[in-house]
Amino acid sequence: MFRDADLGVRPCDIDAHALHAMILERCRRPLGHEMKNAVQSMYAGIEVLAKSLAAGPAARVSPEQCVMLLRQQLDGLQTTLGRILDDVAPERTATQTFDAAAVLRDLARFLSTDAAVAGVKLRLALPSQALVTARPHVARSVLLGFFLSSIDALRGGGELAIAVREEAGRTRVEFALQRDAGAWPAAQDASSLDARYLRTTADSLLALEQGECTCEMLTESTARLSVTLPSG
Amino acid sequence: MFRDADLGVRPCDIDAHALHAMILERCRRPLGHEMKNAVQSMYAGIEVLAKSLAAGPAARVSPEQCVMLLRQQLDGLQTTLGRILDDVAPERTATQTFDAAAVLRDLARFLSTDAAVAGVKLRLALPSQALVTARPHVARSVLLGFFLSSIDALRGGGELAIAVREEAGRTRVEFALQRDAGAWPAAQDASSLDARYLRTTADSLLALEQGECTCEMLTESTARLSVTLPSG
Repeated sequence: MFRDADLGVRPCDIDAHALHAMILERCRRPLGHEMKNAVQSMYAGIEVLAKSLAAGPAARVSPEQCVMLLRQQLDGLQTTLGRILDDVAPERTATQTFDAAAVLRDLARFLSTDAAVAGVKLRLALPSQALVTARPHVARSVLLGFFLSSIDALRGGGELAIAVREEAGRTRVEFALQRDAGAWPAAQDASSLDARYLRTTADSLLALEQGECTCEMLTESTARLSVTLPSG
Repeated sequence: MFRDADLGVRPCDIDAHALHAMILERCRRPLGHEMKNAVQSMYAGIEVLAKSLAAGPAARVSPEQCVMLLRQQLDGLQTTLGRILDDVAPERTATQTFDAAAVLRDLARFLSTDAAVAGVKLRLALPSQALVTARPHVARSVLLGFFLSSIDALRGGGELAIAVREEAGRTRVEFALQRDAGAWPAAQDASSLDARYLRTTADSLLALEQGECTCEMLTESTARLSVTLPSG
């Protein structure tokens, strides 16, 4: 196997993988938050247990109730870790129908602290369900990339409104950006996702799904990004 | 920021990121194992606690001892998650001196189940310390890539011996592969890391550290990979 003369990896795989790793690098803080929150809640659960044992029969929460609580917290932690694993090392999936609204809600939860730290207010206007047909790991990665790129562009203060529109068999996810302080900064933060590489790569990735993405500057302080996929 | 005309990402960044994501994809199972083991030990700790409470004064392990145990297990889980975060979304680090032997021991632990499942016996002959000078996240990624590639090449049965040699101010990590069943299989498993892409990319990454990598077929069933870095 070490003598293979051909480069087995296709260029589009390289870009898809590179984008994925860039997104992960940018997600170091939100991933850390997610892990820390899950662990902290268990530390708190153990403290409640220690107090319950110390209080004896006078305890407001019995040790047995604490055991139930700890099991639930550990179930939650396990779910969180499974989701992190899926984000970090996604299984390559075939094209299928899935709910893009659920993905967006999950990403908004994942990035809520990140957005708050950047001074970005999130406003979601999502239908209860928005079925699309695509490879889920590609669509999730592209949506996550656009979400992060929007937060980075608004860093310092602004509003990010995310909406979903259905148009003639296609589902369009719109990220509407409004910066508080006027014009966009000229340079990106070093930790930001490279917006142009994201768009170039997302475009070629989405082409395989018959999808597309756009990016428009509307005014000096507003912009709109979109990702369109075939409806499910 | 959306109007930048130049592609800000450099090609060598793209390859480095792509390699990182390919390694992560290949690591889905070992990462899952690591998370699962940490969570399972906590489930076991909670079971011990539940039994201790049910047994009352006759319990062999007191509930208070169980609380201590749970705290220790949660500390361990937190350390594991921190290590996973460092592997998944490494912080870009400057060139510094660090212990390559410690990195190899950590990787061997991380990949022990993966190697066992592939029928690969690991044999480590490492000095207590092997200081090298490089960017730690690059060196770790390259060593992990070569380790995985070796396991994949030996899939089905073989021995992987890892040794470190010091030579004139340079430290050479050697992966010696011996396949049980004769000649190398012609095709790679779909889940394997692409060996040629790994080598090409590792070479250009290591060039920045004044390092290098080699890959030699010695006989029909043996091979040797190496990664050389400046000693610390």
